[in-house]
Amino acid sequence: MRAVWKTKPETGLELKEADVPTIRDDEVLVKVKATSICGTDRHIYNWDAWAQGRIGKNIPYIFGHEMAGEIVEIGKVVKGLAIGDHVSAETHISCSYCFQCKTGNEHICENVRILGVDTNGTFAEYVALPYRNAWKNDKQIPHWVATAQEPLGNAVHTVFDGEVAAKNVLITGDGPIGICAVALCKAAGAESVVMAGHNNLRLKMAREFGADHTLNSKNENIQKRVKEIYEKGADVFLEMSGSEEALNDGLALLRPGGRASILGVFKGNVTMDINRVVFGGFKVSGINGRKMFDTWYKAASFLRSGMVPLKKLVTHRFKLKDIEKGFAAVNRGEAVKVVLEP
Amino acid sequence: MRAVWKTKPETGLELKEADVPTIRDDEVLVKVKATSICGTDRHIYNWDAWAQGRIGKNIPYIFGHEMAGEIVEIGKVVKGLAIGDHVSAETHISCSYCFQCKTGNEHICENVRILGVDTNGTFAEYVALPYRNAWKNDKQIPHWVATAQEPLGNAVHTVFDGEVAAKNVLITGDGPIGICAVALCKAAGAESVVMAGHNNLRLKMAREFGADHTLNSKNENIQKRVKEIYEKGADVFLEMSGSEEALNDGLALLRPGGRASILGVFKGNVTMDINRVVFGGFKVSGINGRKMFDTWYKAASFLRSGMVPLKKLVTHRFKLKDIEKGFAAVNRGEAVKVVLEP
Amino acid sequence: MRAVWKTKPETGLELKEADVPTIRDDEVLVKVKATSICGTDRHIYNWDAWAQGRIGKNIPYIFGHEMAGEIVEIGKVVKGLAIGDHVSAETHISCSYCFQCKTGNEHICENVRILGVDTNGTFAEYVALPYRNAWKNDKQIPHWVATAQEPLGNAVHTVFDGEVAAKNVLITGDGPIGICAVALCKAAGAESVVMAGHNNLRLKMAREFGADHTLNSKNENIQKRVKEIYEKGADVFLEMSGSEEALNDGLALLRPGGRASILGVFKGNVTMDINRVVFGGFKVSGINGRKMFDTWYKAASFLRSGMVPLKKLVTHRFKLKDIEKGFAAVNRGEAVKVVLEP
Amino acid sequence: MRAVWKTKPETGLELKEADVPTIRDDEVLVKVKATSICGTDRHIYNWDAWAQGRIGKNIPYIFGHEMAGEIVEIGKVVKGLAIGDHVSAETHISCSYCFQCKTGNEHICENVRILGVDTNGTFAEYVALPYRNAWKNDKQIPHWVATAQEPLGNAVHTVFDGEVAAKNVLITGDGPIGICAVALCKAAGAESVVMAGHNNLRLKMAREFGADHTLNSKNENIQKRVKEIYEKGADVFLEMSGSEEALNDGLALLRPGGRASILGVFKGNVTMDINRVVFGGFKVSGINGRKMFDTWYKAASFLRSGMVPLKKLVTHRFKLKDIEKGFAAVNRGEAVKVVLEP
Repeated sequence: MRAVWKTKPETGLELKEADVPTIRDDEVLVKVKATSICGTDRHIYNWDAWAQGRIGKNIPYIFGHEMAGEIVEIGKVVKGLAIGDHVSAETHISCSYCFQCKTGNEHICENVRILGVDTNGTFAEYVALPYRNAWKNDKQIPHWVATAQEPLGNAVHTVFDGEVAAKNVLITGDGPIGICAVALCKAAGAESVVMAGHNNLRLKMAREFGADHTLNSKNENIQKRVKEIYEKGADVFLEMSGSEEALNDGLALLRPGGRASILGVFKGNVTMDINRVVFGGFKVSGINGRKMFDTWYKAASFLRSGMVPLKKLVTHRFKLKDIEKGFAAVNRGEAVKVVLEP
Repeated sequence: MRAVWKTKPETGLELKEADVPTIRDDEVLVKVKATSICGTDRHIYNWDAWAQGRIGKNIPYIFGHEMAGEIVEIGKVVKGLAIGDHVSAETHISCSYCFQCKTGNEHICENVRILGVDTNGTFAEYVALPYRNAWKNDKQIPHWVATAQEPLGNAVHTVFDGEVAAKNVLITGDGPIGICAVALCKAAGAESVVMAGHNNLRLKMAREFGADHTLNSKNENIQKRVKEIYEKGADVFLEMSGSEEALNDGLALLRPGGRASILGVFKGNVTMDINRVVFGGFKVSGINGRKMFDTWYKAASFLRSGMVPLKKLVTHRFKLKDIEKGFAAVNRGEAVKVVLEP
Repeated sequence: MRAVWKTKPETGLELKEADVPTIRDDEVLVKVKATSICGTDRHIYNWDAWAQGRIGKNIPYIFGHEMAGEIVEIGKVVKGLAIGDHVSAETHISCSYCFQCKTGNEHICENVRILGVDTNGTFAEYVALPYRNAWKNDKQIPHWVATAQEPLGNAVHTVFDGEVAAKNVLITGDGPIGICAVALCKAAGAESVVMAGHNNLRLKMAREFGADHTLNSKNENIQKRVKEIYEKGADVFLEMSGSEEALNDGLALLRPGGRASILGVFKGNVTMDINRVVFGGFKVSGINGRKMFDTWYKAASFLRSGMVPLKKLVTHRFKLKDIEKGFAAVNRGEAVKVVLEP
Repeated sequence: MRAVWKTKPETGLELKEADVPTIRDDEVLVKVKATSICGTDRHIYNWDAWAQGRIGKNIPYIFGHEMAGEIVEIGKVVKGLAIGDHVSAETHISCSYCFQCKTGNEHICENVRILGVDTNGTFAEYVALPYRNAWKNDKQIPHWVATAQEPLGNAVHTVFDGEVAAKNVLITGDGPIGICAVALCKAAGAESVVMAGHNNLRLKMAREFGADHTLNSKNENIQKRVKEIYEKGADVFLEMSGSEEALNDGLALLRPGGRASILGVFKGNVTMDINRVVFGGFKVSGINGRKMFDTWYKAASFLRSGMVPLKKLVTHRFKLKDIEKGFAAVNRGEAVKVVLEP
């Protein structure tokens, strides 16, 4: 089958044939109909410090993890799935037996392996998935939209980490996750959503997804502007940028008793005013992946009801063999979500 | 009446007469029977940077805020209290009308004033209190013990910020609050409590309060030692020291999905590994004061049942006029809780 | 001043002059601009068994409790309010010192008195209110709309007793509270809302407020119909009718792990299948009044954002002196909310 | 192998040989070292109405479900377990793919099968278990104690359905679950525990497990007595008897805002004062099984720390072939927990 490999410890990728995977008794084989480029894939493509540390020992392997496809084969102990089902992949492959897995927190499994990072991924014609990681999609949803459910899921996990109805929300980070979060907050009754980012194309999309205000940190003073909008401070702060400055802005802008849910991944240690957290009685949560599978049920509901216009997120569609064009669009900051179809 | 004043912007205090306070319609007048020295008072006495910034504009005034006494006069609209009641003071004087006050979070009132910091305090023979701040004590409890309820309350607020039964707990900070937290964790079914501190006298008391292990950060590697004790990491981390190093130790030692409740006040910004919080899906809360008055009800219950031996915390008792001896004992690190009786 | 009295232990009311109330130091005097008829008032007017037992000893007195008006006088210890403020009344007058009042649950104060039931009420030109019970309204909202905030508040309390985003909701009871609940569920991201009632006028309004399906229990089998709509059962059941049959329908229709929030007041004991609750692991809550004041903040937010079209709820407006016309409309089942203006 | 069968639709059992089970790829084979008699087994033995309805179609089959043993064989996709591990059985065999299973609520799986009810059980020398249902025991715990973990688990699930530290608790039902609940409440910091039951032997054991007061409903007025003990009402009510009278007593005795967690299974519909729940703002939960596996982790912790003296619960130990003696002891009300060893 056609597949996209990371073969060398340097920028780039390689298009190369691979064997169709064989499955274990608790796995399904999925024919990939659409797969999409995530920030993680960009790290791998660009071979930055994170990729070198995390992936170095795995190459050569097939990367990619956002996906929608169709089940074509099923293992012996698989339950609740059938050949022909449309599925997407939950990318956290959990061990099933650690404390987190056995207490409803598989998303932070202590032995987790990530699809397309620790295992062969979805930039290919077929992928093998543990059956518990195959999420059955509604057949009404086109594959090229369903593949974008993973960032939607991250957004669902972050937004619904606490109450959002009737709240004033500040979101920092204008990537696909942040943009989905805007729509979710509004769909769930937030009174107001302010998004701070730095890419005008994406900020425009955030407004289309319902943001009441968008601010560009390149030319606006975020703290000053948000204080004008939310005189009493934000009730909820969703950090989705991984920027130390954004983190400190958000903590400075939160009202006493406010909630900060942090999904952004940071370059390293940050310097922050922890006394704000202490005196403010803040609730700060780290957000990793998607709750398995509460998050997916919620995401599916928002897709069915049409309250989140996920389709709009997809700015580019290419053939899988033209994946280099996709990375180019992403690297130029012109794309929100790039979908590849084998 | 006799009172202890902060009159000059320098180290020290002044013993001086003051008028007995007059009360408003929603206040009570309390005859102070016992008052005690808290870390805040030490800042004020020693006139450090915090005190200079926070108190500078208030002097001259009477300081002190931990207290037990008896009501001798009652305002016209006071409800639920009577002359002769034994009371202690909740030191957060809230405004009653801000968002926090109107939603069950008076302890983080946006207009809060602190007794003995922003108002005349309890190092005196009498003090005036808004009636909502007068907590009725059980008459079985001696005043010299009841005055130490405030740090117990801080500990209750922190410990019960989440589940503790059947958990492995790490506490950093061996002050009176940390020591009370040990007893509370054990009383509430924690499987194990490790305390890390730096004062052997206090660590010994922590063991008497039930700590399974105590570690002295002056001569032990906290991360290494706790990893030996809690192979899978701590379930719960209670930060009660205000030390950046302790904060980072605790975050490094928490298991995925763990809880960090931070009560310690830090010298300024801290540098920390925020990605630990994000990837670990940690729940981090800032803890300020005591929940008004859920915390006090719980503290009272633990006093009634005898599960927290608060009395032992009091290492020194002096006459109020000998308060300088108390500060000396505190400054030498020889005291846990110093009580003053007018 | 003009006022509406309950003077005799029989059906009806009496229009009669009264003295303008004098206020205590912790009260405000409000000039009533609009007041409205609630189910409780109807019990009092119709002098049913409940009214006889509850009100018998209070007559003669002025009834009514839903209100919007303007502050004209202020007591000495009142904080956060000013003459000229527009306010509505929280009708639960709490004691301020019982366990519930001191732990954020004033709405279930053990010494609660109800405005217009235990005290003189709002069917009058002026009313005296404890300042903590005067909720400041946005001046943009007309008084005749603001008076209807109380049922909106009951709905807010019930709907936000748990998660509602992405949920399938069943509401039983088509009164003003149920109708508001429909709009709130949809505003907060519920996937679907089914309302079961028995009054076609009100069910029509429920559809205007966003109900996906309305069912009339007079001519439809609720259990059969809801099972067709929610194949897996409802996630959330809001009981707002006080009907034993509705309660049992709802419990029969809830999925395992579902939430039932019960606001309806029942005629007496009910016979129910408690094993459904046990085996289903249901979460059942009783809902009384409005959270003070979390509920009011949320209601205000939904009014500001326009997500709940409260104005539409008001089907009739009369002069206070024509209050009998209002009760007639209510008793004939022709009205949703009747507003009276002095 | 030796096994205890239910072969006929009538009171009794049959001791008969059976084949050692063969396992699937996701199962383990366990050599049973100890198994114990639960109330469910008694229904099956006595062939009451419940057993006739629930089990009728399954006979002949092997019953029993409380167990401790050793793994002797392992399926191909099993993870986290090894031959020689000591295990007990979680008896809810969940489907793994329904909404509840995929959102952390396997204990209320909509396709659940119960070990020893819907499948061949543990009254035998060997039993086959899905690997996710095999809970690894600490090898320090004797098998004859570990088999009693299931009722301990039910108690853990019920007690920790809400806060218990510093609370006044009422438990109705003096079976093994109720008795375990007493010890758990005390271990977790409850201020006081009152148990109401009807068997003096068991009430005596409840006192040994830490009950502050025990009441025998055969000769004491529960409502009157508990009102004397808890003047303000109970904070927490744990219903573990399945008696309508006990349920109504408990609801009558709960304070406003109190918690009722109901584990008891009732004979049919009950008549209850639902308005108590509504006006009181009660939180009522149904409790089914054990949380998988949060409950088991907590139970294991309490066993390790020795805070629950589970061993004392075992009043009788017989050889499996003498199981009739065990049922006789249970039916005479002389036993708390009867353990059988193959």
